[in-house]
Amino acid sequence: MEDPGITIKRRDVMPAGAATLPAEFYVSAGRFRYEMDRLFAVRWLCAGRVEQVEEAGQFFVRDLLGESIIVTRTPTAEVRAFYNLCRHRGTKLCSESEGRFPGSIQCPYHAWTYALDGRLLGAPHMEEVPHFDKEAYPLHSVQADIWDGHIFVTLARATPPLADQLADLPGKFRSWRMQDLRLGHRIVYDVRANWKLIVQNYNECLHCPNLHPALNRLSHYLSGENEPLHPSYMGGRMDLRPGIATMSMDGSCPRAFLPGLTDVERRGVYYYAIFPNMLLSLHPDYMLVHTLWPLAPDRTINICEWHFHPQELARPGFDARDVIEFWDLTNRQDWRVCELSQAGISSRAYVPGPYSNREDLLYAFDRMIVGLHGGE
Amino acid sequence: MEDPGITIKRRDVMPAGAATLPAEFYVSAGRFRYEMDRLFAVRWLCAGRVEQVEEAGQFFVRDLLGESIIVTRTPTAEVRAFYNLCRHRGTKLCSESEGRFPGSIQCPYHAWTYALDGRLLGAPHMEEVPHFDKEAYPLHSVQADIWDGHIFVTLARATPPLADQLADLPGKFRSWRMQDLRLGHRIVYDVRANWKLIVQNYNECLHCPNLHPALNRLSHYLSGENEPLHPSYMGGRMDLRPGIATMSMDGSCPRAFLPGLTDVERRGVYYYAIFPNMLLSLHPDYMLVHTLWPLAPDRTINICEWHFHPQELARPGFDARDVIEFWDLTNRQDWRVCELSQAGISSRAYVPGPYSNREDLLYAFDRMIVGLHGGE
Amino acid sequence: MEDPGITIKRRDVMPAGAATLPAEFYVSAGRFRYEMDRLFAVRWLCAGRVEQVEEAGQFFVRDLLGESIIVTRTPTAEVRAFYNLCRHRGTKLCSESEGRFPGSIQCPYHAWTYALDGRLLGAPHMEEVPHFDKEAYPLHSVQADIWDGHIFVTLARATPPLADQLADLPGKFRSWRMQDLRLGHRIVYDVRANWKLIVQNYNECLHCPNLHPALNRLSHYLSGENEPLHPSYMGGRMDLRPGIATMSMDGSCPRAFLPGLTDVERRGVYYYAIFPNMLLSLHPDYMLVHTLWPLAPDRTINICEWHFHPQELARPGFDARDVIEFWDLTNRQDWRVCELSQAGISSRAYVPGPYSNREDLLYAFDRMIVGLHGGE
Repeated sequence: MEDPGITIKRRDVMPAGAATLPAEFYVSAGRFRYEMDRLFAVRWLCAGRVEQVEEAGQFFVRDLLGESIIVTRTPTAEVRAFYNLCRHRGTKLCSESEGRFPGSIQCPYHAWTYALDGRLLGAPHMEEVPHFDKEAYPLHSVQADIWDGHIFVTLARATPPLADQLADLPGKFRSWRMQDLRLGHRIVYDVRANWKLIVQNYNECLHCPNLHPALNRLSHYLSGENEPLHPSYMGGRMDLRPGIATMSMDGSCPRAFLPGLTDVERRGVYYYAIFPNMLLSLHPDYMLVHTLWPLAPDRTINICEWHFHPQELARPGFDARDVIEFWDLTNRQDWRVCELSQAGISSRAYVPGPYSNREDLLYAFDRMIVGLHGGE
Repeated sequence: MEDPGITIKRRDVMPAGAATLPAEFYVSAGRFRYEMDRLFAVRWLCAGRVEQVEEAGQFFVRDLLGESIIVTRTPTAEVRAFYNLCRHRGTKLCSESEGRFPGSIQCPYHAWTYALDGRLLGAPHMEEVPHFDKEAYPLHSVQADIWDGHIFVTLARATPPLADQLADLPGKFRSWRMQDLRLGHRIVYDVRANWKLIVQNYNECLHCPNLHPALNRLSHYLSGENEPLHPSYMGGRMDLRPGIATMSMDGSCPRAFLPGLTDVERRGVYYYAIFPNMLLSLHPDYMLVHTLWPLAPDRTINICEWHFHPQELARPGFDARDVIEFWDLTNRQDWRVCELSQAGISSRAYVPGPYSNREDLLYAFDRMIVGLHGGE
Repeated sequence: MEDPGITIKRRDVMPAGAATLPAEFYVSAGRFRYEMDRLFAVRWLCAGRVEQVEEAGQFFVRDLLGESIIVTRTPTAEVRAFYNLCRHRGTKLCSESEGRFPGSIQCPYHAWTYALDGRLLGAPHMEEVPHFDKEAYPLHSVQADIWDGHIFVTLARATPPLADQLADLPGKFRSWRMQDLRLGHRIVYDVRANWKLIVQNYNECLHCPNLHPALNRLSHYLSGENEPLHPSYMGGRMDLRPGIATMSMDGSCPRAFLPGLTDVERRGVYYYAIFPNMLLSLHPDYMLVHTLWPLAPDRTINICEWHFHPQELARPGFDARDVIEFWDLTNRQDWRVCELSQAGISSRAYVPGPYSNREDLLYAFDRMIVGLHGGE
């Protein structure tokens, strides 16, 4: 057997006729809207990190489903999210993508002013209008919650709590102590492909020998072992090859491993798609997070962040180019084939093609998507 | 009371529940088309100035409602307007935005040639076609008329005369002798907002202290006094503060006042929205004209012109930068908040918000718009 | 009579009421889709030249009707065409517009590999899937055939052979020995006009004196003699003026005439629109080919190629700028009026205009188009 030291993980045989989705799931505006309405608009979405709103008044703005959402922190340390518009004449309040409010949020048009918890504090000349009640005009609120340093928001008014959606994930990844980590680098990609093609690409390594020779040298493409698909996530672990310390340009790791990891956890990478918009990749020494922001059936904004332990970030001469370059290279290879898939699937000649046993999670994910649309 | 020398003009109290328009009035393609068909396509629109077609054959082209319209002058001194297309195979006749025809209008394709009054003069080889009648193929005409130097056109075939639409405006502004003024400067803005947001922004100064501190130093935002909305226009007058001579960067006026103004007229600025596309701002020493050309629910071309007395324009060293810079600065501030309003109103969270007493004309305008659409 | 030496060709008189098409034929998305489905998708389209795939594995890619099509040559010298997508997950196989495959076609995603005749050769890990049959997954084939060096393709599955569509064209143009000619230059134009306006422009020279004075000096606009419209083509011949050797900047011809032409063929240019996408212009010393690739009702990609005899191309100092510049100039004049016609026809004021006797082929073409749409 090739590759001594590699444990090849077997997979179950695919059901007869297991094939990719019909084209309409990737190109139809109606299917896209449906997925936005029934999935992205009702689930919790990973929006950013607690460290981005460490102090009261710090904020960032996230665009999702055509909405601009402000995430900020109140003086009582609550993380809050609001639709980015004034209650007076609808003016967009905040044009910057991040920054710090000076204690309150003021509309640039007529100076209506809101507290950081959304209460309307001042509305010039409205006191002359009988029965005007400031308490009736707070900012439109968006639900926000936190998991281990990750901020989640949902546009749904009534939805089960974030903890329900996460299910057993908090326990599964406790060792990495994600809340302690801090952002080292961010790259925003504009991918001309359906969001599901990005999720599918993330969840198989059958393409790695051909598309990612550098990655395949660090982690053998048959070393992956998946969990069965869970309603809230899918994923698994891949082994690092003998002598490889982490996923970096040369496989070495100039950083300390994250504290709290077991020996087993230090010898692999854990790749989880957390539905619908988060791809969480836990390495022995860093955390990679992709969040997906679909704009159209054939277009998705993909925000990729590298997070490190603060002790490493604080070390003189800290340099993470070895892992940033590695994943930026891998990302670009992946988004390119996702775009090529989007292009080919749009052809009148496209028909669903057969899945191999190595694409088990994709077939399960597709079944879930078909179910979301009410079956085939 | 703050600001000695300022007379604050009181306003009536808003009706209970007076609120901004629902979002669809600003974002719906159907509502937009309706307003174009029932308002812009049936009313007279301010298209330009007589001085642009001072001599026979001079022309300018204006794009409105997806149409390209030629405005020119005949040898008998009539101002005429035509659709910009040949009666042969529909070719656009004129690609320049302004210029001078050499006595006739010739199609670049097969050289069909028209007189400046639209008559077909020549059509090569058509004489071989039996019964071809040149008189049956004049340029498609567009009605044009003039008010005090302003050229108005209408795409309507049968519409009341311009004088009916203008009602009492000619008398109201006779003192400014607008027909004597001449263009000093023009800036074309491309505003990503619904045309009504620009009209609404123009008709209240509640936003001035916050958005236009420079303007508010020249003319106090509470000094405005409005007429009740008229079916053809809405507007009013604002006082210049003591010591301020005109709306310019420093409030001084290096130009002579326009001849014919009363003392009262010299101490204020008259701001009138003349429906549907003209914003006329009469200053003691110059005339500011905005014309609005909606392209889409969320996009409007806004042409802004500064007109001066020809004696001033002819003066050696004439320099109007003090008023051009002032209004260009103010314009940019205004278009930016209009664009922010367009963005916020597009949110699923937007609901109509309450008007203050200082937004009386907006509320009246909104009622007129709702009536145009057949009521709520 | 003006122009001694010019024989003016008479034309029949137009039927009463002969007029251009209604605007919807040029602007309606529905009419456009109908023409793509019922004409471009069912007929043979000229896609390129045999010389572009001279050796096995050479390929070029052509975009038509939203499809990307690979044209290549097999080791057994067959010219074959395929939809540019993998049978596995639909990925676009080939991103280059031309090149040479290394003996097989490999998908960049999971390395599925195809023979140059389309057979699936390898599909990694698919052997683990029971009953997977490689023979069931060849590339999706597109019919290809050849006429005298021109490669034609059709997206239709069952369509009469190319020879049927060409009818008597092969005999008509045998003298030019088109299969011997080789590409000298190519220019791709992006024309903002309906494809039919380009065909119509190509089939009358009534516009030449006004639009193309340079062309009219070489070939008198009334010297054209047309064949009656044939279901597969329309066209005719124009005479070169006395002393003019070919269509070039100065009318001289520094190249040898093509071998095989009669004296009569050397004294004219033959202009044929071969439906739906080829404009074939045969000169005494070169072949000009336009192929049309409609993208939208108001947009057409227009590929123009100049082909010469290989003995001329091989001559030291071969320089074809005299004919490239001539036709590039004429092309640009033509596309510009096509774009002006598209703009004017889009106006609400447009109504069909009268045809002259010199526009006989256009009227016949229009009748054919109306018939394609099921009559008026």
